[in-house]
Amino acid sequence: MKKMDSGVTAAIGFQAAGGSVGIKQGNVKDMALLYSIVPCVVAGTFTSNIIKAAPVKWDQHIVYDCEAAQSVVCNSGVANACTGEEGYRCCMETAKIAAEVLKIPEDSVLVASTGVIGQQIPIDKIIEGIRMLAPLLSNSREAGSSAAQAIMTTDTRQKEIAVSVEIGGKIVTIGAMCKGSGMIYPNMCTMLSFLTTDGDISKAMLQEALSEVVKDTYNMVSVDGDTSTNDTVLLLANGLAGNPMITKKDRDYQKFVDALYEVNTILAKKIAGDGEGATTLFEVKIIGAQDREQAVVLAKSVITSNLIKTAIFGHDANWGRILCAMGYSGAKFDPEKVDLYLESSAGRLQIIKNSVAIDYSEEEATAILSEPEVKVLADLKQGKAEATAWGCDLTYDYVKINAAYRS
Amino acid sequence: MKKMDSGVTAAIGFQAAGGSVGIKQGNVKDMALLYSIVPCVVAGTFTSNIIKAAPVKWDQHIVYDCEAAQSVVCNSGVANACTGEEGYRCCMETAKIAAEVLKIPEDSVLVASTGVIGQQIPIDKIIEGIRMLAPLLSNSREAGSSAAQAIMTTDTRQKEIAVSVEIGGKIVTIGAMCKGSGMIYPNMCTMLSFLTTDGDISKAMLQEALSEVVKDTYNMVSVDGDTSTNDTVLLLANGLAGNPMITKKDRDYQKFVDALYEVNTILAKKIAGDGEGATTLFEVKIIGAQDREQAVVLAKSVITSNLIKTAIFGHDANWGRILCAMGYSGAKFDPEKVDLYLESSAGRLQIIKNSVAIDYSEEEATAILSEPEVKVLADLKQGKAEATAWGCDLTYDYVKINAAYRS
Repeated sequence: MKKMDSGVTAAIGFQAAGGSVGIKQGNVKDMALLYSIVPCVVAGTFTSNIIKAAPVKWDQHIVYDCEAAQSVVCNSGVANACTGEEGYRCCMETAKIAAEVLKIPEDSVLVASTGVIGQQIPIDKIIEGIRMLAPLLSNSREAGSSAAQAIMTTDTRQKEIAVSVEIGGKIVTIGAMCKGSGMIYPNMCTMLSFLTTDGDISKAMLQEALSEVVKDTYNMVSVDGDTSTNDTVLLLANGLAGNPMITKKDRDYQKFVDALYEVNTILAKKIAGDGEGATTLFEVKIIGAQDREQAVVLAKSVITSNLIKTAIFGHDANWGRILCAMGYSGAKFDPEKVDLYLESSAGRLQIIKNSVAIDYSEEEATAILSEPEVKVLADLKQGKAEATAWGCDLTYDYVKINAAYRS
Repeated sequence: MKKMDSGVTAAIGFQAAGGSVGIKQGNVKDMALLYSIVPCVVAGTFTSNIIKAAPVKWDQHIVYDCEAAQSVVCNSGVANACTGEEGYRCCMETAKIAAEVLKIPEDSVLVASTGVIGQQIPIDKIIEGIRMLAPLLSNSREAGSSAAQAIMTTDTRQKEIAVSVEIGGKIVTIGAMCKGSGMIYPNMCTMLSFLTTDGDISKAMLQEALSEVVKDTYNMVSVDGDTSTNDTVLLLANGLAGNPMITKKDRDYQKFVDALYEVNTILAKKIAGDGEGATTLFEVKIIGAQDREQAVVLAKSVITSNLIKTAIFGHDANWGRILCAMGYSGAKFDPEKVDLYLESSAGRLQIIKNSVAIDYSEEEATAILSEPEVKVLADLKQGKAEATAWGCDLTYDYVKINAAYRS
């Protein structure tokens, strides 16, 4: 497997463009267009929030009911959520115009939005944007990068990655871009992530692979415990790599899943590390669990605790808060048997054994917690299952950003 | 029912004392002693966290297995949680010394602690404190107040209340003190609350009354979503009011429950309004729900959302976040039918109807949200059940307090 400094245009046949159409203030990029030169099979996972944004409903229709997809139109600034029937009509209109301009069927145009909830989409600007971006579509590195910038909201960094892997004698590439900074506690998937691959794979296997990978990657990320109305992961596969089509769970399928897992793990960590106001990427790994479910519940409980997140911000080894968050998680475990370790590039330190503090150095603990990426490892010593979750610290800037997001 | 500016010494026969024994730095009060001149029946509710502090285990033994209680020893500064067998031995030692000094049985001494998790209790200071405080025990208003101050941690205000009610021709008084500021998301009860009453009531009815009231009061409070290892509510009844003993769910029982409900509602709101760093008491009321359970889940989901809490801090009517938090709560409801209102002493304003924004004034909304107590009312229009939860905003000071709590 080879990692590449690239994004959604890395795979053969995919083009992208990004630009400013005036939805956000200040002439920043706020609209992206993604296009495959041939029709793709598509898989998707969507928010579990019962309040679903209009584009989520539209995309579910395309992914579940339609044969092929060929384009994605995405805007940032306005989420098109809680916008009633008018919001859904905007999605239909967006797809109609994109279909005309790109000369593809309406029901092959996916739509995504991110930003403020409750405002109607400025549909005129979207239409204008489609006409503006279509001639700019390109498979260049820069075009992918431009699209990745255009889908950002409070993100401070664009998030892209691509990997290639050899399948059936051919090089299959998976490229991706995503955004996510606040309202991040995906329960089906993250805010917005778009994956493109030239691998040849059946729709059923594509969905299977995506669903399998999403639950261990995006679904293990939390910035603030809020599951968005817009969470969407879309994976388009156009088959242009020419590998023997993957139609069952064989060795080729596993290779594809491994590559997809790599891409999405990297993106999940990028999202967590770029959480609103974050200074630290915070990883929690539970090992020695009786089963995977128990490990997941515990890892998520620790990663979402405000008290732990603020302690991480303060570089404070306040381990009592970690045990406490494990204790109220709802997962059953032996509360007297937990071992706890802190880890970062500055070292690794055991701080509790059998749920009681050992004589560790606070200075060493603080040094470990002062790195930009820190890890808490809890060993339940009860079995062989494990889970990893990613989050970030809770900072003054998180409060600042969210106390004034709309203005 | 009469509300009084008093606390744990309001009911006949209860005495209190509070003082500084050097557990906390800077000569601030950190230890309280509570005593009834005659043995009491006692009821209690405790944290649902499976990591339970040593005093929680000790008190559960007293409440569940023993006949009577007559005293409570409480310290702040150190929580005596995650302290293993040594921590439990400290509780036993505390009870033993208090029993000697007060000339009561060891198993009638309740123990409570609040503060940093993981440090051992300085047992010598506790013993010294018992000997120092016992001679200061008094039924004065000031003594109650002194005890209420001594149990505070990051609380900015002491929290006391008392009410009296006529039952069977006698005046029955319920007095109370509590503390709670961070790690507040009680699942059985709040951090620490001590209630005293001179009402005559059987142990079974006392526990029934407490359990009934706790679920609608403390259990509906959240400051930060973290359920403490130490949550404890204790209710001592010494019978000195001379009312006919309450032994079944009759009219007298209901009067007692109503008074208990009043006391605990007031305390619950005091805890929420004094949440760490809080500037605003934030109340969420769900009405028109199909059942109580649905209303509770929705109210708690809104009250615990970081994004909503920061919006409240910013006086921003970011209602999309409210609908979003309802949507991911796990409760089923019609996502197209929600009406939403903002309310405070500055007025009442409908902002969404059937889940879509109506043409409201942002200025008016901001004015309403700029008051120290604000309320969100959501009407599901699906039934008659309702629930109310209390919380607070998420501020810079919450981060500041918790990034450096131990130092």
